[in-house]
Amino acid sequence: MKCTYTIHRHQGHYGWDNSNPPVLTIAPGETIEFHPNDASNGQITVDSTAAELMTLDFDQVNPVVGPVVIDGAQAGDALKVTLLDFTPSGFGWTANIPGFGLLADQFPDPHLHIWKYDADAIAPALYGPGGRVPLKPMCGTLGVAPAELGQHSIIPPRRVGGNMDIRDIALGTELYLPVEVSGALFSLGDTHAAQGDGEICGTAIESPIAVAAKFALIKDANLRFPRFTTPGPVSRHLDAAGYEVTTGIGPDLMSAAQQAVADMLELLATRYQLNPIDAYLLCSVCADLRISEIVDMPNWIVSFYFPRVVFE
Amino acid sequence: MKCTYTIHRHQGHYGWDNSNPPVLTIAPGETIEFHPNDASNGQITVDSTAAELMTLDFDQVNPVVGPVVIDGAQAGDALKVTLLDFTPSGFGWTANIPGFGLLADQFPDPHLHIWKYDADAIAPALYGPGGRVPLKPMCGTLGVAPAELGQHSIIPPRRVGGNMDIRDIALGTELYLPVEVSGALFSLGDTHAAQGDGEICGTAIESPIAVAAKFALIKDANLRFPRFTTPGPVSRHLDAAGYEVTTGIGPDLMSAAQQAVADMLELLATRYQLNPIDAYLLCSVCADLRISEIVDMPNWIVSFYFPRVVFE
Repeated sequence: MKCTYTIHRHQGHYGWDNSNPPVLTIAPGETIEFHPNDASNGQITVDSTAAELMTLDFDQVNPVVGPVVIDGAQAGDALKVTLLDFTPSGFGWTANIPGFGLLADQFPDPHLHIWKYDADAIAPALYGPGGRVPLKPMCGTLGVAPAELGQHSIIPPRRVGGNMDIRDIALGTELYLPVEVSGALFSLGDTHAAQGDGEICGTAIESPIAVAAKFALIKDANLRFPRFTTPGPVSRHLDAAGYEVTTGIGPDLMSAAQQAVADMLELLATRYQLNPIDAYLLCSVCADLRISEIVDMPNWIVSFYFPRVVFE
Repeated sequence: MKCTYTIHRHQGHYGWDNSNPPVLTIAPGETIEFHPNDASNGQITVDSTAAELMTLDFDQVNPVVGPVVIDGAQAGDALKVTLLDFTPSGFGWTANIPGFGLLADQFPDPHLHIWKYDADAIAPALYGPGGRVPLKPMCGTLGVAPAELGQHSIIPPRRVGGNMDIRDIALGTELYLPVEVSGALFSLGDTHAAQGDGEICGTAIESPIAVAAKFALIKDANLRFPRFTTPGPVSRHLDAAGYEVTTGIGPDLMSAAQQAVADMLELLATRYQLNPIDAYLLCSVCADLRISEIVDMPNWIVSFYFPRVVFE
């Protein structure tokens, strides 16, 4: 779409720091098209192999474009970001990076899957080892600069947003971020062609996607954490054929999540003759972690929902 | 529907114990219509007030009907339970019971809401303080007897199922439970007219609902935990108008869930002039806790999805 400004992939940074020099200053109401690189900053290409994951330069991982000064933003305001348009590239990758991911102990070896998808039709994308994954382009990292001085890692999300990896921050979503510094200093990156709730293996369909957004300020909103509004249903691209669901039950939500995911990988491996590592990557891009029950002391239930449409 | 057998509300028990005398023995393939009482065992009626929550007999809470022997079931098998039909009663209640619920510290006082809903049409039910809640009858407690001797509390779910309170164990769902004792000893109760993922205040729309089910055995399935299959979409009754979503971000999933819920209550209280306690009960019956991100060390994100259709 036609925006007031464009920010290109070289106009970015690799860490949250309120001393990062702004690449642009805009007034509320103006629009920007962002062109972030993928989460490897272009280190992974269509010809890459799993071995290359061992020599990745992690200082370049999860690059974002920005920061953008929003004129008039002050600490205590909320920055409203409305996602207006996504222009996918058709190329993506999903990886198991050793030491990273919900089941890192069970999957110590690097693994890489390269995706090609129809960037215009956004039709379900064929997964080589089996299945076809409905796509929903989304943006994994959106944040503003923290008040605390110094550089802060780009990997964990925090109060001011950042690498939130929330599947439903997608087309039409209105995101509200707590502003901590004058001008807000907004940056964006880590676009995904598809992701499940949880992003269990640590990567989604990592894909360069242009994102158009507009900005507004809510004065003195004093949000504690980010919140957002979706314009409509969030998982109809996945739900038509129902779900296979595994559960983990116990007093610790993290262990319950790991249990539910481990059982789903076993189910998929058995039923569809997938290698466990292939099932792990597949689940990361399309299956959802939900807290089914969090009150029946002392045991909680985390459920893992795999959309059956992937194999129909 | 017409079933091979009927089990009435007095044919039940209040705790899992593999020495509970069976009320019925069936062959795989046979059907049963269960008529459980509500989770208060009839102590809460359409005329009840919050004060009565302080004098509830907790020894009667969460009654189940059964146990049923499934002929031929052995430890290591899975009991497949297919939910064939729900016959709702039109009466329900939602309560804040002191000491129970995700935000028990913030809501120390008893609170009770009585629901009347259209048992035939299952149209969205009016919530007195504000909003209209789409219904989806479901069954909160389904389980088999544990191998471990003695009586086990009915409140927490465990490996053999029990009080799982999973929203999507509903019409058409196929549930698979790990059998630990000969005959399985299946019981069922705690029916809900609607519930959100998490059941955050500790109760849903607690409602007497007859449930028809059929049974099958999967020999030597050796499940670690329950799992289930849904026949179709799970939240289309809620999703048409999109969601308001709050987030909690941090290294502990429980704290993140509490944070996300607290922010949602504040949002609803402000926007719709609800008392916080009314917002708490409303969220428990229609809003969903999801794990959005569980890999971006050291901070995870739990999101709380409130369906906007409730106020449209």
